[in-house]
Amino acid sequence: MFNLDSRLANHTLLMGDFTLCRLLLMNDRQYPWFMLVPRRDEVSELFQLDSEDQRLLWQETTTLAEVLKDTFSADKMNVATLGNMVSQLHMHVIVRRKTDPAWPDAVWGKHPAVPYTAEEVVAIRQKLRLVLTDDFRFAETAG
Amino acid sequence: MFNLDSRLANHTLLMGDFTLCRLLLMNDRQYPWFMLVPRRDEVSELFQLDSEDQRLLWQETTTLAEVLKDTFSADKMNVATLGNMVSQLHMHVIVRRKTDPAWPDAVWGKHPAVPYTAEEVVAIRQKLRLVLTDDFRFAETAG
Repeated sequence: MFNLDSRLANHTLLMGDFTLCRLLLMNDRQYPWFMLVPRRDEVSELFQLDSEDQRLLWQETTTLAEVLKDTFSADKMNVATLGNMVSQLHMHVIVRRKTDPAWPDAVWGKHPAVPYTAEEVVAIRQKLRLVLTDDFRFAETAG
Repeated sequence: MFNLDSRLANHTLLMGDFTLCRLLLMNDRQYPWFMLVPRRDEVSELFQLDSEDQRLLWQETTTLAEVLKDTFSADKMNVATLGNMVSQLHMHVIVRRKTDPAWPDAVWGKHPAVPYTAEEVVAIRQKLRLVLTDDFRFAETAG
């Protein structure tokens, strides 16, 4: 039984599921900032996943970073698992641009989040639909 | 021909080499903060490595995180590749403790580095010698 930590849920928008991970979008329009959460319980460190899940997490992370870099014209992709505040294992995959408000610093703790409009989220989902294909299942959305 | 970026070299101490990556210790005694740098030229993003190198980077990263967590009694391991300032691909593997000066925030940009004493570096090398075995080659040190 997979339960998403409520703090992750509260700050993100559900995009859908890869084979292993749930894909979330951080509700902060300052950066295209995604999160991959392995749908496993009681895991907080990479090495606590079994070897097949580790392989999947790496594959989903790397593929997502590659796809997002093109789709959102990143200058650099930032990939990180920290978990100092929320211990449930989650991998940040963040599109960084030289024009974003935190560049070249790391994004954590830098600027308060600025929520997306509904239209902006629709536009991001549409972009993802063009590039996430085979092993990704989009979440149902209310319209 | 592998060339380590001078900014990475200037802020770190050489520990040795895994099969793919050079292992560096950030010269900041506030955290046991290590860095893995794939010994490949002209690579700045994870997905620019070929698939075998990706496998090795993941394996070396995960194994190192697991070993460091025990060796340095981490409360949480932080694993990240950012590269906004130095584009040469490098993976941070950082031991975080609830008592460290940045906890629970991310370490980047938080506190100016505090260099190790020579004795402290010897002690860290000795700890690593006990836990890094087969696929790790320690760098020669001057004494």
